[in-house]
Amino acid sequence: MQDPEFERIGKRLIQEGLLSGNFGNMSVRSKDGFYITASGSFLDNPGELVYVSRTKGVGTGASSEYRVHQKIYEMTDGTAIVHAHPPFAVAASFGGDAIVPIDSEGKMFLPSIPIADGEPGTEALAESVGEKSGISPVVIARGHGTFACAQSLEKAYLLTAITEHAAKVLYYRRSF
Amino acid sequence: MQDPEFERIGKRLIQEGLLSGNFGNMSVRSKDGFYITASGSFLDNPGELVYVSRTKGVGTGASSEYRVHQKIYEMTDGTAIVHAHPPFAVAASFGGDAIVPIDSEGKMFLPSIPIADGEPGTEALAESVGEKSGISPVVIARGHGTFACAQSLEKAYLLTAITEHAAKVLYYRRSF
Amino acid sequence: MQDPEFERIGKRLIQEGLLSGNFGNMSVRSKDGFYITASGSFLDNPGELVYVSRTKGVGTGASSEYRVHQKIYEMTDGTAIVHAHPPFAVAASFGGDAIVPIDSEGKMFLPSIPIADGEPGTEALAESVGEKSGISPVVIARGHGTFACAQSLEKAYLLTAITEHAAKVLYYRRSF
Amino acid sequence: MQDPEFERIGKRLIQEGLLSGNFGNMSVRSKDGFYITASGSFLDNPGELVYVSRTKGVGTGASSEYRVHQKIYEMTDGTAIVHAHPPFAVAASFGGDAIVPIDSEGKMFLPSIPIADGEPGTEALAESVGEKSGISPVVIARGHGTFACAQSLEKAYLLTAITEHAAKVLYYRRSF
Repeated sequence: MQDPEFERIGKRLIQEGLLSGNFGNMSVRSKDGFYITASGSFLDNPGELVYVSRTKGVGTGASSEYRVHQKIYEMTDGTAIVHAHPPFAVAASFGGDAIVPIDSEGKMFLPSIPIADGEPGTEALAESVGEKSGISPVVIARGHGTFACAQSLEKAYLLTAITEHAAKVLYYRRSF
Repeated sequence: MQDPEFERIGKRLIQEGLLSGNFGNMSVRSKDGFYITASGSFLDNPGELVYVSRTKGVGTGASSEYRVHQKIYEMTDGTAIVHAHPPFAVAASFGGDAIVPIDSEGKMFLPSIPIADGEPGTEALAESVGEKSGISPVVIARGHGTFACAQSLEKAYLLTAITEHAAKVLYYRRSF
Repeated sequence: MQDPEFERIGKRLIQEGLLSGNFGNMSVRSKDGFYITASGSFLDNPGELVYVSRTKGVGTGASSEYRVHQKIYEMTDGTAIVHAHPPFAVAASFGGDAIVPIDSEGKMFLPSIPIADGEPGTEALAESVGEKSGISPVVIARGHGTFACAQSLEKAYLLTAITEHAAKVLYYRRSF
Repeated sequence: MQDPEFERIGKRLIQEGLLSGNFGNMSVRSKDGFYITASGSFLDNPGELVYVSRTKGVGTGASSEYRVHQKIYEMTDGTAIVHAHPPFAVAASFGGDAIVPIDSEGKMFLPSIPIADGEPGTEALAESVGEKSGISPVVIARGHGTFACAQSLEKAYLLTAITEHAAKVLYYRRSF
């Protein structure tokens, strides 16, 4: 399956500096699983998506982060996930167990953004992010990046943008 | 109504990092009110504008910031407003009652940029911004963003760019 | 006169964050004077250039910075000038009488970048920049911006990019 | 020879702020040498590449950094090299003999990024970078820029992006 919405959102993520290179990945929930970007694909040109079924296993070439997506879909009602590597949010993630925004949008939409632990691609990270995704639509994997879950890729991207803006304001305010 | 000038200015605002995601909004004064971007619209693709009449109420889907725009139009002769979320200006807004630029353009066009208080979408914020818009063409809502009022969207955008440039120079000069 | 090279260089200046809004201006030397961008024009869409003659006066609508360009052409053999507002270079200009790069390109091409004084648009600024343009192809007007003079717009833009890169490296190295 | 892959990668390098102006260069290994971008060429519009033969000498107009590329190809099995000037990595290079990333991708792909010494264009720099390229796919020339060597231009660009992201996270974390 291909989906032009993935490319549209991928282009905005790159344009706004929320990820670089071929990092990050995105998925949308389907009946019995979800479609995720392929391992190594560029989000502004994602090409063919890979299906991960709850019952029939993982399609060839799925992003190695599929475990985290799977766990978030188990723990929430969200239907789309954006994983990005925004530099201010990643830097802020070293500071404690949560980022607490001071800007208006951050305070309104993400009053406390939890930090999860675990190495990329591992079950441990999936467990930690999944657990915290029950209490916040955005979770940051420490030193790694954001996982935003919402009812659409667009909304998940917007939550990612709010997170990075909040981290920037904290940084420029010299509060992290 | 649609207006290609909204899209042109929206694209520049995003290109220069003065806002991200679907944040910010813009309006132009009309005979008996003003046209404002819809709630949740992306400023680089604003689509149909919403009419806010002084006497006949607020069109469906108007940006929730319409109160601030309405108050600024009451208090000034300006005919266009740009509201953006430039990160350096937002961070600087926590520091006091005004930002005082040290760069040449800031000193010339915006010698003292007042900070207003109040939560986004409230009458209190509208009152605070409206009052200060009588003394400066740009007012910053603390922790939230800029409201620039001028005789055209282009001029209001340029005042926004001057504000962010001034805040950047203050920051890199380590003066805020 | 129009010249597509102005637009090409203007687009690169904006893309690289060396100026924002409609700030900055550019000129090329001609037989008896120079062609300069119009006051208020956007450098990525400069439109009709304005002629400034040494003997017959200043064409209508010339950028108010024409005095600085005129003085630089008097003092040097350069045939093109780019004036931009790069934020790191502007912030660094408050620190002393010159910026001394520590990066390789800065050290090679601009070992010491002098700072000039004077308010924008004044004869005093023109005198100060003109004088220092005899010793360095880039001069920074304190709190205002860069004036780069070379044998082409492209070369003047590259010197501007070297200046901002040098200022960034000094800043991130915490040396200014 | 021209190669559209050079232009594609050059555009991404510029879009992500990994180089500015006409800085940086790229090459791909060939049977008896390598093709490198011309001196002064813009990487987003590289034009005709220049051949550097191991046995028959250096084609006219080759980038003056060809010595470093030549030495890296001697010391490694890599088939493509990207040299860029990412500002955070350059600033970080003044701090010691290596950059040690703390972010997940940096730790995984580039656990310790060595710093080489020597002036641009010299044999000394080529020796220093070449020697260290045996132990890391990315080497940073102090105060100058990154040399990334891999099996394709795309992979070399991605290593460059990882390096700058790692340096950014270290900087924003206030660790360099």
